Amino acid sequence: MMVSERMRPYMENNSAIRAMFEEGKRLAAIYGRENVYDFSLGNPNVPVPEVNEAIREIIDEEDFNVLHGYMSNAGFEDVRETVAGSLNKRFGTAFSARNILMTVGAASGLNVIFKSILNPGDEVIVFAPYFVEYGGYVRNYDGRIVEISPNTETFMLDLEEFREKINGKTKAVIINNPNNPTGVVYPEEVIQALADIMREKEQEFGTSIVLVSDEPYRELAYGGVEVPFVTKYYHNTVVAYSYSKSLSVPGERIGYLVIPDEVEHSGELITAATIANRVLGCVNAPSLIQKVLKRCIERGISVDLETYEKNRNLIYSRLTEYGFTCAKPDGAFYLFVKSPTADEKEFCEAAKRHHVLFVPGSSFACPGYVRIAYCVSYEQIERSLPAFRALAEEYGLSR
Amino acid sequence: MMVSERMRPYMENNSAIRAMFEEGKRLAAIYGRENVYDFSLGNPNVPVPEVNEAIREIIDEEDFNVLHGYMSNAGFEDVRETVAGSLNKRFGTAFSARNILMTVGAASGLNVIFKSILNPGDEVIVFAPYFVEYGGYVRNYDGRIVEISPNTETFMLDLEEFREKINGKTKAVIINNPNNPTGVVYPEEVIQALADIMREKEQEFGTSIVLVSDEPYRELAYGGVEVPFVTKYYHNTVVAYSYSKSLSVPGERIGYLVIPDEVEHSGELITAATIANRVLGCVNAPSLIQKVLKRCIERGISVDLETYEKNRNLIYSRLTEYGFTCAKPDGAFYLFVKSPTADEKEFCEAAKRHHVLFVPGSSFACPGYVRIAYCVSYEQIERSLPAFRALAEEYGLSR
Repeated sequence: MMVSERMRPYMENNSAIRAMFEEGKRLAAIYGRENVYDFSLGNPNVPVPEVNEAIREIIDEEDFNVLHGYMSNAGFEDVRETVAGSLNKRFGTAFSARNILMTVGAASGLNVIFKSILNPGDEVIVFAPYFVEYGGYVRNYDGRIVEISPNTETFMLDLEEFREKINGKTKAVIINNPNNPTGVVYPEEVIQALADIMREKEQEFGTSIVLVSDEPYRELAYGGVEVPFVTKYYHNTVVAYSYSKSLSVPGERIGYLVIPDEVEHSGELITAATIANRVLGCVNAPSLIQKVLKRCIERGISVDLETYEKNRNLIYSRLTEYGFTCAKPDGAFYLFVKSPTADEKEFCEAAKRHHVLFVPGSSFACPGYVRIAYCVSYEQIERSLPAFRALAEEYGLSR
Repeated sequence: MMVSERMRPYMENNSAIRAMFEEGKRLAAIYGRENVYDFSLGNPNVPVPEVNEAIREIIDEEDFNVLHGYMSNAGFEDVRETVAGSLNKRFGTAFSARNILMTVGAASGLNVIFKSILNPGDEVIVFAPYFVEYGGYVRNYDGRIVEISPNTETFMLDLEEFREKINGKTKAVIINNPNNPTGVVYPEEVIQALADIMREKEQEFGTSIVLVSDEPYRELAYGGVEVPFVTKYYHNTVVAYSYSKSLSVPGERIGYLVIPDEVEHSGELITAATIANRVLGCVNAPSLIQKVLKRCIERGISVDLETYEKNRNLIYSRLTEYGFTCAKPDGAFYLFVKSPTADEKEFCEAAKRHHVLFVPGSSFACPGYVRIAYCVSYEQIERSLPAFRALAEEYGLSR
């Protein structure tokens, strides 16, 4: 056998999201891009022209070999200082460059932290629905995912089940706020209650339990909704951030980990994570884009939220008008819609016949729902509406 | 304990190369950059201005969200086609885009391939001296490194010891040509002999053994020396390439894997590697720099070899003149010099007192030698010569 035994489960459960993305490209080639309504992937459609301006300036101003060369495995010192300073200003924290590790996106940041902390058999708790890639990241280091059932009323954290399932083998807990796939934002009191339970259980079991806060959608919250900064509520918190959404650069693979001094043995963990970043083969986060995000922070550049909010308002109001059921999302750029038929994969197939692509909830451990990514053009949403209406009629939803 | 048990060995054997790089930055801050002669890291000093030109053009011409957005996990289709076409033209191969997987540098490519093929306990053979990070990459997937002793006469592959150590548990063999740290280039007859043994042993044990050819220095060969393209000599070959050296962009993290159709179950291996690229958290190779290398290939752009050759000629001739012993390197940008004292770490410390930094051979499983990276400015080499001469005198080498 050429392929390792351990790769087989990954191949059998290959990403349905990615498969849908590839399917979208296939259909677009046949029917034309404008006739395929691809809501499958969180691939932003809103340009941030200031990113390109920063690139132009930087390549003009900086020394070629410093700009494109190796730096410390943790990233450029000045970039990490700027990130730390910006977090301190926004959230009243006291980070310095040493608390910031630049990573190849949040996905790589999560791999780095799990490699750093997980022993074989350690449990990592996730709240359904959740980004299934977490399962792969945890399995990479022989950890075991423990799922908390979804609360399909509010899509808030089910803290009762959490309290029951957290145990002496629990090494980490992942939250994702604002949430993919629901778009829900966990408010302060939810984070506070989660933190209280984790502190209590750390004491009860005499263990350290890391709260891994995956925050690629931090900046995407609408109508003034606040996204709590988790390190303030719980000592053993590690934040994984990505610029994929806030600067619309998911292909560039840039993000960071925050490992606060409040984390137990923080110095050792920072060292471990820096080595993990190197030895997993990333070596360092891509260099030019590090410098770019520094300038964007200094200039207060972030993606135009109004575009996404306008998208959300249109698609949410129309779909509910057509009879679909869905919690109104306060953040991210997803709707998590109840499938009109129990087998939501069948619903996805029906939608595909209308050239509408979205992803089954079973890809997020929450069957019976589908995720619609509205990080597309307003025009695509408008053009897709007749198809959604036709789907609603097909399932007898229309009022 | 916050840090996992499995991270501990990595922390105890943390990279001496990286430590020296950090030391160089520290000394430069104290004594001034021009008074510290840092030969520790393979961090190129030769700019490739065409890279910046390509960046300017691309950000002017391409759609923001396509350029900086997600693409297939294997990389942009047009980029992979260009890479395949260029290899075909240069080496008479018949690759298509599907044989090329864009990666976050060669280091990540190696992680991807080892994750794809290694079962726990599988053996991976390396030839000393070798880049010790290979040990970490193999251990990441619970593989076991098996070392072949260095041939300190020629630094060619010791194929007799290889034949003895290859066995039924051997899953892969790594070669690195041109070689880091010796600068030696393995010629066709050596590759051919290696391939013959591997074919014979595959038959004998009824196994598949992958030849992993790590080739970041492929373009860096001097005086018309040819670097054989290994897929032509052995069916189960996977090539890991990086643009770090040929475009002087190590910080940008860009490279690729070649998985030829001739590899057993190649389709399955390509799928596994593409998934590994995603699930290890890279997701895809950074997007802008993918497009950049495409233009550089189309325009035949590569780093100016003469600069490195001039460096090599200067440092090799002077150091041997001062009495140091070293195999003349045909490629890469390293000299692997015999330490004038058995404990080469002591020699490194002595050099540091002259503000000259290089790396002990024990970091390459070859104690008694040191690696000098001459990918620095010609002026740095010139300025460092009195320090090398003084060192030679200190050790009684000068003639």
